[in-house]
Amino acid sequence: MNHSSSAAGLAGVVAGETALSTVGKAGQGLTYRGYSIEDLAEYATFEEVAWLLLRGELPTSRQLTEYGQRLQSLRTLPAALTDILERLPAASHPMDVLRTGCSVLGCLEPEDDGRSGLEVADRLLAVFPSMLAYWHHFHTSGQRIETASDDISIAGHFLHLLHGSPASETHRRAMDVSLILYAEHEYNASTFAARVAASTLSDFYSAITAAIGTLRGPLHGGANEAAFDLIDRFESADAAERGVLDMLDRKVKIMGFGHRVYRTCDPRSVIIQRWARRLSVEAADTRLYTVSERIDAMMKREKNLFPNLDFYSASAYHFLGIPTRYFTPLFVFARTAGWAAHVLEQRANNRLIRPGADYIGPESKTFVPLHQR
Amino acid sequence: MNHSSSAAGLAGVVAGETALSTVGKAGQGLTYRGYSIEDLAEYATFEEVAWLLLRGELPTSRQLTEYGQRLQSLRTLPAALTDILERLPAASHPMDVLRTGCSVLGCLEPEDDGRSGLEVADRLLAVFPSMLAYWHHFHTSGQRIETASDDISIAGHFLHLLHGSPASETHRRAMDVSLILYAEHEYNASTFAARVAASTLSDFYSAITAAIGTLRGPLHGGANEAAFDLIDRFESADAAERGVLDMLDRKVKIMGFGHRVYRTCDPRSVIIQRWARRLSVEAADTRLYTVSERIDAMMKREKNLFPNLDFYSASAYHFLGIPTRYFTPLFVFARTAGWAAHVLEQRANNRLIRPGADYIGPESKTFVPLHQR
Repeated sequence: MNHSSSAAGLAGVVAGETALSTVGKAGQGLTYRGYSIEDLAEYATFEEVAWLLLRGELPTSRQLTEYGQRLQSLRTLPAALTDILERLPAASHPMDVLRTGCSVLGCLEPEDDGRSGLEVADRLLAVFPSMLAYWHHFHTSGQRIETASDDISIAGHFLHLLHGSPASETHRRAMDVSLILYAEHEYNASTFAARVAASTLSDFYSAITAAIGTLRGPLHGGANEAAFDLIDRFESADAAERGVLDMLDRKVKIMGFGHRVYRTCDPRSVIIQRWARRLSVEAADTRLYTVSERIDAMMKREKNLFPNLDFYSASAYHFLGIPTRYFTPLFVFARTAGWAAHVLEQRANNRLIRPGADYIGPESKTFVPLHQR
Repeated sequence: MNHSSSAAGLAGVVAGETALSTVGKAGQGLTYRGYSIEDLAEYATFEEVAWLLLRGELPTSRQLTEYGQRLQSLRTLPAALTDILERLPAASHPMDVLRTGCSVLGCLEPEDDGRSGLEVADRLLAVFPSMLAYWHHFHTSGQRIETASDDISIAGHFLHLLHGSPASETHRRAMDVSLILYAEHEYNASTFAARVAASTLSDFYSAITAAIGTLRGPLHGGANEAAFDLIDRFESADAAERGVLDMLDRKVKIMGFGHRVYRTCDPRSVIIQRWARRLSVEAADTRLYTVSERIDAMMKREKNLFPNLDFYSASAYHFLGIPTRYFTPLFVFARTAGWAAHVLEQRANNRLIRPGADYIGPESKTFVPLHQR
């Protein structure tokens, strides 16, 4: 038995096994099912990566085509779900909307009803972008949008629905790469929550709902939104230098830097930084990317900290025209692939996840009847 | 760092601290905030226990009266929520309904909107019974019931709403005691899921939604329903003896026995068994309770296993006229107190819960371009 002092937040404690990805293994970097994140971000599509994570191998060309068509056919929202999305207030947190939409779908299309876990996974991958876009347009302009589209990719589909016109190829691919980078990351908190739920042999939707709620927090998925709020407040790189130095003096936490597992760099950050730079050049931006690079350099110099995936993703999403409050929902679109693969893996070799705790409460007390208090 | 072999399901691994309850500590039995479960089940009410768990001390007489009134005032469902409950199919799993209702309420009455975590906890304690009863009556008889009632206790309120008439005092108190017994149990899987969600600094509703989804599984909250299905299939104690022996021969798992943490007995079982016996006498039952006792004796003799809380709770709930599929939702009504107290405790001394995993996947693979597959 561990002492709780050494296990605070279970840091460094092995909670199980996985064949899905390596995070921070010496000499191996980040791989999904053995393939390096660099190769996947360069040569694969998000749908290809989702197939790889969920089915264990890269798809053949034919399998990938059929899979894309299948996902495309699963984008439509049932009428009961659109009715419910219309009843969630415009001011709702978008993560609460996705958490609710996922839970509702568990009532409308339950897993046990002749539907396998893998089928639920594909449905959720296909439907989350439609869910967010439908709710968004209904509550901003009153439009009840069609959620079918001709776009083959999930990235293109979402950008099309959000903006009302097809995305440029650079934008589409930037988002596609971002989805690949966010798709899977071992036993991070939201994935672990999904595995805990799955370990009671609960249903697929319960596990994904738990994961969405867990991702929502600023110490996890919410970090990319916080990173953008930081970057966007500065008018120039010099202003950022002064502002961040001041924040460091005041011990304010700078979001988007460091990582529980990585020690020297986050291999995903390098990739998304390249895309952020490219998008900033296309957008003729002279501020946001420069500010980002300056903060990055300062954090290295002052704190020896490296940017994690969230930091440059924030700039990239901004150039894709995505409102800040949808940054974490985009993380959901991607990580659903990883969550689902982990739920299937947990089920394949299940043991109830039920740790113990150190008791630090009072010794036994004598009950005092109500009238004597 | 542990080896995963010793940490499968984190059994015996300390994942943190708690001042809320002791489970299976030698010489201490089960206590909530230091008070023995025996005293609480004998002398306290569920509302008193909820106050104790959430606020740390037993309430004064005046505090308890005011708390009861406050909970009573929080039983009404917002119109958007009743609309949504009407759109969840009659065939939905009732746990999916509560999971969804909780998530919806997080959109309608968000925590950050001048509402504290403690206020959300009280609201959820008060509103879950109304939510289930409203959905139940709408989908069984088309009635849109009023969810306010004169009953002071949550137990009386729920039985009244469910059956359409006030419960007898014995029935009311039996349910009240059951809620006390189910209220809190250290780092069980659903509570742990709530703490994982809370550890990212996510909101209260996300944590409780995660907990409901986790409780739903048959290895956790679903066990009381499975226990009832077992007991109810036998016509007599002798038939149960033959049937269970046959199941043991075939290595079928008998639900409602044994426990991850308790080794020799579950102190809650003794208490609920007394109530099940009393209710069976009142109901002039000659079958169900006798069958339960026989299975209990056999499991002791054949497997040296003891009944856990779920086993006799199943009989007790049956005598209270509660449909089997609502057994786990009743667990939600009770455990919301414990979940909420754990979320507050996690927040008070937070560290992100993010374990590691042993990688058992393939070595690095070379990416093969799509057209070469």
